[in-house]
Amino acid sequence: MASVNPPRGMRDFLPADKARRERVLAVIRERYRAHGFDEIETPVMEEYARLHAGLGGDNEKLAYNVLKRGLDADAIRSGADDPASLTDLGLRYDLTVPLARFYASNRGQLPAVFRSIQIAPVWRAERPQKGRYRQFVQCDIDIIGDASPRAESELAVATLDTLDALGLEGGSIRINDRRILDWMLDRFGFAASERPGVLITIDKLDKIGPGGVAAELRERAATATAVDAFETFLGRPMTLEHRPFGEGQIRAALPDGAPDDVVADLAGIGAAVSAARGDDVPLVFDPFLVRGMGYYTGTIFELAHPSVDYSLGGGGRYDGMIGRFLGQDAPAVGFSIGFERIVDLVRAADDSGVPAVVLVHDRDVPWEELLALKSALISDGSRVRLEQRTKNLKALLDRAGSDGYTSFATVSAGATPDDLELKPLA
Amino acid sequence: MASVNPPRGMRDFLPADKARRERVLAVIRERYRAHGFDEIETPVMEEYARLHAGLGGDNEKLAYNVLKRGLDADAIRSGADDPASLTDLGLRYDLTVPLARFYASNRGQLPAVFRSIQIAPVWRAERPQKGRYRQFVQCDIDIIGDASPRAESELAVATLDTLDALGLEGGSIRINDRRILDWMLDRFGFAASERPGVLITIDKLDKIGPGGVAAELRERAATATAVDAFETFLGRPMTLEHRPFGEGQIRAALPDGAPDDVVADLAGIGAAVSAARGDDVPLVFDPFLVRGMGYYTGTIFELAHPSVDYSLGGGGRYDGMIGRFLGQDAPAVGFSIGFERIVDLVRAADDSGVPAVVLVHDRDVPWEELLALKSALISDGSRVRLEQRTKNLKALLDRAGSDGYTSFATVSAGATPDDLELKPLA
Repeated sequence: MASVNPPRGMRDFLPADKARRERVLAVIRERYRAHGFDEIETPVMEEYARLHAGLGGDNEKLAYNVLKRGLDADAIRSGADDPASLTDLGLRYDLTVPLARFYASNRGQLPAVFRSIQIAPVWRAERPQKGRYRQFVQCDIDIIGDASPRAESELAVATLDTLDALGLEGGSIRINDRRILDWMLDRFGFAASERPGVLITIDKLDKIGPGGVAAELRERAATATAVDAFETFLGRPMTLEHRPFGEGQIRAALPDGAPDDVVADLAGIGAAVSAARGDDVPLVFDPFLVRGMGYYTGTIFELAHPSVDYSLGGGGRYDGMIGRFLGQDAPAVGFSIGFERIVDLVRAADDSGVPAVVLVHDRDVPWEELLALKSALISDGSRVRLEQRTKNLKALLDRAGSDGYTSFATVSAGATPDDLELKPLA
Repeated sequence: MASVNPPRGMRDFLPADKARRERVLAVIRERYRAHGFDEIETPVMEEYARLHAGLGGDNEKLAYNVLKRGLDADAIRSGADDPASLTDLGLRYDLTVPLARFYASNRGQLPAVFRSIQIAPVWRAERPQKGRYRQFVQCDIDIIGDASPRAESELAVATLDTLDALGLEGGSIRINDRRILDWMLDRFGFAASERPGVLITIDKLDKIGPGGVAAELRERAATATAVDAFETFLGRPMTLEHRPFGEGQIRAALPDGAPDDVVADLAGIGAAVSAARGDDVPLVFDPFLVRGMGYYTGTIFELAHPSVDYSLGGGGRYDGMIGRFLGQDAPAVGFSIGFERIVDLVRAADDSGVPAVVLVHDRDVPWEELLALKSALISDGSRVRLEQRTKNLKALLDRAGSDGYTSFATVSAGATPDDLELKPLA
């Protein structure tokens, strides 16, 4: 017999949780839309070949694949050595691969610069652990069709404004550029072929420190002179938190001779964000920010907030990806808010202003009267729940309170709306 | 190479469509909540054994099943004769089976009478045809824990009010009770074992008429005297549209001797709905309404509207179902609005009142100025899209209009918010 629990690593949401999630999503959606982004939706499934084209990185291995319909025993036996032959569809593991497919399919009906919102679940068959779920919601904004850093600055402003609207003021964005990383590794003397492995190690800098990075690079047998030069550079005194953000800070954090065009792009993003927000630039240049996905080609960023020591989102530029679907290049950059990480930080009180009333009644009050009372209150703008009185009235009212109800009244036979004495729920 | 289209029978939603769908869903959600229902969410996947326990009717055959992760060639070969052994999860084909599972899992945290909302997609691998999709949204409300017809009347009032709020006034509910059908078939002389087949035929009455029903029942070799009696009954002069709804109309539509308790339940639902809505009872008794699902045990209903000749939703009482999950009976009744059928009927204008402005600029306007202007307008409550001027300005503005933008302004270098001359989008 099947268990009554949801599948492993997936969650049921009860009314109070569901309401809170919907309120937070409504804020995110409203802010993204205010910034000129438009929401789209794609099916939760995509073709297997699409999901396993090498653009999903490690997530491809975590995809849930759907069994073809109508397979007979022979087809299954002959597909035994190639499980992919048994499946034609899979559940998406991110919103970026579907967006690229969507854009290729619908480009003729979209603006030249297309600013998309996607707020939707994705699925990954990860080993369940605290805070990791197999179904979770992502909130992505992307700009397709703008190769300039203007796109990055619009994404950054929209994201920071959304964080503010959620009551999480004080957020900041760690920023880097894949072109900076490429140039830097080249300058230290790493061979181009070593680059992917070296980046994987550098990505651990926060966790294992400069010494750990140098040791791991030596284990990898990376070019020894390059590792030495890199270790020396990492060891020099500096602070990444130095402000104000701008060309000075960027160059100070890098070896001499950083490429002018990339530095100018980064500084330009900062200037534009500052102009839009009218405050100190909430950007922090981090030359060792890597981000895992292989498809990034330019700017990469992560969203930080002083209340937590983990990232609340991230993104980057992936100019090459859509071309693989479309057959013609289309520049693209995206920023994703980690909804499951944010939802627990937000105090999203129900500010709908709708009075929510519990009508407590005894069994003997005629049902027609109760339903007429309920409808009268609803017509006046209330949300109304009928509850038959139970022995433990307090438990009943407590539960209603946790579901967002704000007041209650006891109903006797013959009562009219004017007879109701509303009392606040504690 | 994979196609750039969404999987067969599934749809992409572009901005204008997506916005319209979200607006309609917001109305439905708000009305359901006003009527004291609380939204929950379950994972899109359930255990295979759960989805194939015989409660999903024909939909079980249409389920998308998920391949187990990590199957090796031997496991696949040995499972060739039993495809179910290759799968452990499936995508839900309705919201009722997951609700029953949810209730069994979370009952301790729910009110004694639990009124749930579920607004979510389901998946069925149907043969694609016009108006049938393989991923589509259902909007269900259910009441668990109330065995009385009070529950039916709350569902009916909430559903009709929601239809009104969507601008579809004038809706009505066709209603019947499985106990009426059982009694009637018994009275005509059909054996209990014939009942499922006879119901399948009666369900076609709208399409094939009384003569067709009698002919098909004879083909089925149903008890001949029963078929004769039933044919005579069907042939007698009567109108189902007779009002007012109540015991008189119900008894007039049935053979003599209909069970008093069931007739009283139906009449009571009508009286309560009338009391709540303060108008003629928008119920129509239809003694030949069947509805396909085998799990219905009592009341069944379908939602009708004069503008269309198909049903806009339906539901019924399924008292036995949750017990199969819970190990202990829990009465339940639900009503589902057919969202995909309704969304195209609704004129859901964007009534958010938010001004939506397109700022058209030439390439030479400094980006910092544009982003600052945009942010200033957003702070004042607008939704703002930046568009670089193209040769075909009209096409650009038309597209923005179809995405819900209401005005535009041309921006020159050095402009402040006060300089903008907003013009309405045609």
